[in-house]
Amino acid sequence: MSAAPRFAPAQRVASFDQDVWSIFTPLAAETKAINLGQGFMNFGPPEAVQNAAKEALDRVEANQYSHPRGRPRLRNALAASYSPEFGRQLDPETNIIVSAGANNAMFATFAGFLDEGSEVIVMEPFFDQYISNITMNGGKPVYVPLRAPANAATQNISSSEWHLDIDELRSKVTSRTKMIVLNTPHNPIGKVFSEDELRAIGKVAEDHDLIILTDEVYDRLYYPPLQKFPRIAALDGFWERTLTVGSGGKSFASTGWRVGWLIGPEHLIKYALAAQTRVVFSVNSPCQEAIAAGLEVSLTEPLFQDQVDNYLQKRTRLSKVFDDLGLPYTCPQGAYYILVNTAKIRYPADYKFPDILDQRGDDFKMCYWLTKEIGVCSIPPSEFYTKEHWTLAKDFARFAFCKTDDVLDQAVERLRELKKYIVE
Amino acid sequence: MSAAPRFAPAQRVASFDQDVWSIFTPLAAETKAINLGQGFMNFGPPEAVQNAAKEALDRVEANQYSHPRGRPRLRNALAASYSPEFGRQLDPETNIIVSAGANNAMFATFAGFLDEGSEVIVMEPFFDQYISNITMNGGKPVYVPLRAPANAATQNISSSEWHLDIDELRSKVTSRTKMIVLNTPHNPIGKVFSEDELRAIGKVAEDHDLIILTDEVYDRLYYPPLQKFPRIAALDGFWERTLTVGSGGKSFASTGWRVGWLIGPEHLIKYALAAQTRVVFSVNSPCQEAIAAGLEVSLTEPLFQDQVDNYLQKRTRLSKVFDDLGLPYTCPQGAYYILVNTAKIRYPADYKFPDILDQRGDDFKMCYWLTKEIGVCSIPPSEFYTKEHWTLAKDFARFAFCKTDDVLDQAVERLRELKKYIVE
Ligand SMILES: Cc1ncc(COP(=O)(O)O)c(C=O)c1O
Ligand SMILES: Cc1ncc(COP(=O)(O)O)c(C=O)c1O
Repeated sequence: MSAAPRFAPAQRVASFDQDVWSIFTPLAAETKAINLGQGFMNFGPPEAVQNAAKEALDRVEANQYSHPRGRPRLRNALAASYSPEFGRQLDPETNIIVSAGANNAMFATFAGFLDEGSEVIVMEPFFDQYISNITMNGGKPVYVPLRAPANAATQNISSSEWHLDIDELRSKVTSRTKMIVLNTPHNPIGKVFSEDELRAIGKVAEDHDLIILTDEVYDRLYYPPLQKFPRIAALDGFWERTLTVGSGGKSFASTGWRVGWLIGPEHLIKYALAAQTRVVFSVNSPCQEAIAAGLEVSLTEPLFQDQVDNYLQKRTRLSKVFDDLGLPYTCPQGAYYILVNTAKIRYPADYKFPDILDQRGDDFKMCYWLTKEIGVCSIPPSEFYTKEHWTLAKDFARFAFCKTDDVLDQAVERLRELKKYIVE
Repeated sequence: MSAAPRFAPAQRVASFDQDVWSIFTPLAAETKAINLGQGFMNFGPPEAVQNAAKEALDRVEANQYSHPRGRPRLRNALAASYSPEFGRQLDPETNIIVSAGANNAMFATFAGFLDEGSEVIVMEPFFDQYISNITMNGGKPVYVPLRAPANAATQNISSSEWHLDIDELRSKVTSRTKMIVLNTPHNPIGKVFSEDELRAIGKVAEDHDLIILTDEVYDRLYYPPLQKFPRIAALDGFWERTLTVGSGGKSFASTGWRVGWLIGPEHLIKYALAAQTRVVFSVNSPCQEAIAAGLEVSLTEPLFQDQVDNYLQKRTRLSKVFDDLGLPYTCPQGAYYILVNTAKIRYPADYKFPDILDQRGDDFKMCYWLTKEIGVCSIPPSEFYTKEHWTLAKDFARFAFCKTDDVLDQAVERLRELKKYIVE
């Protein structure tokens, strides 16, 4: 038989770069930098949610396998919470499945619908996991950029000003296109797509009979003056072609619980479920109960509103230092990231960077230097672009404000040290 | 552009049958049958483990993202617990990753190593998820049977008597073979492969340079007279080509927590990790802490020994009724299933079965009837065979004894009612 070494990896994983998180999260820890990098909270879930997890641990059956669709209590709570959001009565049996985090819901959707060569249109910048999740399932990502307005380099702008060119989107559709991936509120921009924008995107999907996969993990985090979070699945007839992803981690400050969900019409949900059942079989049971409890509380108490108020205050707390330093940024309508323009920062020309950064965009160097020398870790957004578009990200760094006030204050204090490195 | 409907599923999921669990678990619930079907416990994790989960919920960082490799405490505990088992010092940084259940560890391994057309040798009967996990990643399962001895139809046998023909195994290797999947202790047979058997299997892998993926989720559950659980990764030089899968759910009565692991040499682990990081990103954090605590306790207290004593007693409790009824069975060396020969049971010839069972092996009908009319749910093992070999399973039913004594006693009482349906 063959004597070739058989320990080679599959093609689908052979080319994976080291992901940005496994570079910057350990770097932040080593250097004792304040970590405004990865998007997890340094506070825990609301008390009611935490207590519900403990209660669940005391119930025997809540420690054993859940149904692959998810626990009935959680699906019922999701139906109660989301039916008004979608303007339709969601059926917990057919319209909702629970996933091991939002990430796993997206993986399952790609696994359920993509064949070798299927094309998926993704907007740049993108949440990095989309790309591997698409290619691992035989798909081909096709990119269309969200563009910052020209004045983003010189003044603060709103995330609403980042723009998708609908004709450009339409030009990317081929006979192999299967799906459009949307992300609103958007990571890292913070953009909340308007109803008009969503209608235009939905129309492209409709004209070409495409599935829409909309990643709405930050759906509970949008800020005034926005009064309402527009959902593409609730507009026109788009429900029939849309799968909406949500995250218990983002909604209830429990990113480590790995509870997410997928909502959509039965004819789409069933194939995502078919994949998901094989990939993880089922999802952590006690934490499903706890997220269910959180959603139940949110039906009668202003839990999400309080959370928004908190985050809004944090956004101001952090963004003020960039105002003071004269570093322009994108003010986010949703999510908890600020994209800061770092073009005016000059680190020493002879600064020594590790070799590993040579293969990356320039923003990796800036974020590395900020972490090591200023003591605040942010994320280089070129990770969210294809290599050919890395330059679009070279002047940006992403700072997360999902942190307690004291940590944000410390970060602000350290960031003030940037003053002497800034040129006008 | 094309007007073809784009909502069609991917080929990789289009042909999935309804899985056995989603037929029998709801059936058991509806009919209030005693569920000895799916392999989950009706008791909870040990108190120390449960308390550790609650403690973890009180620590902020134990509610947020863990490293994709798994939490350091859990990897350290796994290294401490498994190093003596493997006869080598395991490195928590490179030899161990944590997965969302054992299932997800296997999926990630297939995703990390299989290309389109890669062949994977699987023994029949197999744990059903293997097949979809292989085909979803482009692989092709190639089957080799474990055969029961001829007298299995007439008398009790030991699971050790189920036999793998090594020449037959070797005959299945082609130039496309990438991997052999092994399962010990075996579900549903209960077989614990002997060192000699493992050496012979390992030799085939070595001769053809294959990876061995060994599913050892029941590694803490083997019964006297067995003194030691032989692991293929600890024999000869097989470590270099072996990935070993374990399950917190099976080891600590917490199947719903979805914590598993994969142990092996760095050159294999790294590609499984590359896949796993993209499929689920990371694993439930508080339950990782709790499983770590359980492993820590097991280093100084006879937690696993107590568990074995308990299960051994349960095995006797359940098997006795089959002795009394004169139904021959395979006495398992490990795991918690009894494979019973049902050939002597005659249900009424005119019994009405739902249509859904027409497409399945005859054992589906027997198990359906047992559930509805006798009130005890078991699992038809043809689910664990390819269609062409369904007849090998037609006379068997799998009963799980991972249940409290009162439930087993109730099951025994109901099973006594079988007497009048048994012909000699
Ligand atoms: C846009 C986006 N989608 C998905 C995820 C993943 O969410 P989860 O942690 O629920 O898998 C994240 C996490 O940062 C995200 O920013
Ligand atoms: C042989 C075998 N492998 C794997 C698994 C899955 O284990 P987990 O629940 O940890 O995913 C099972 C569960 O029944 C099993 O019997």
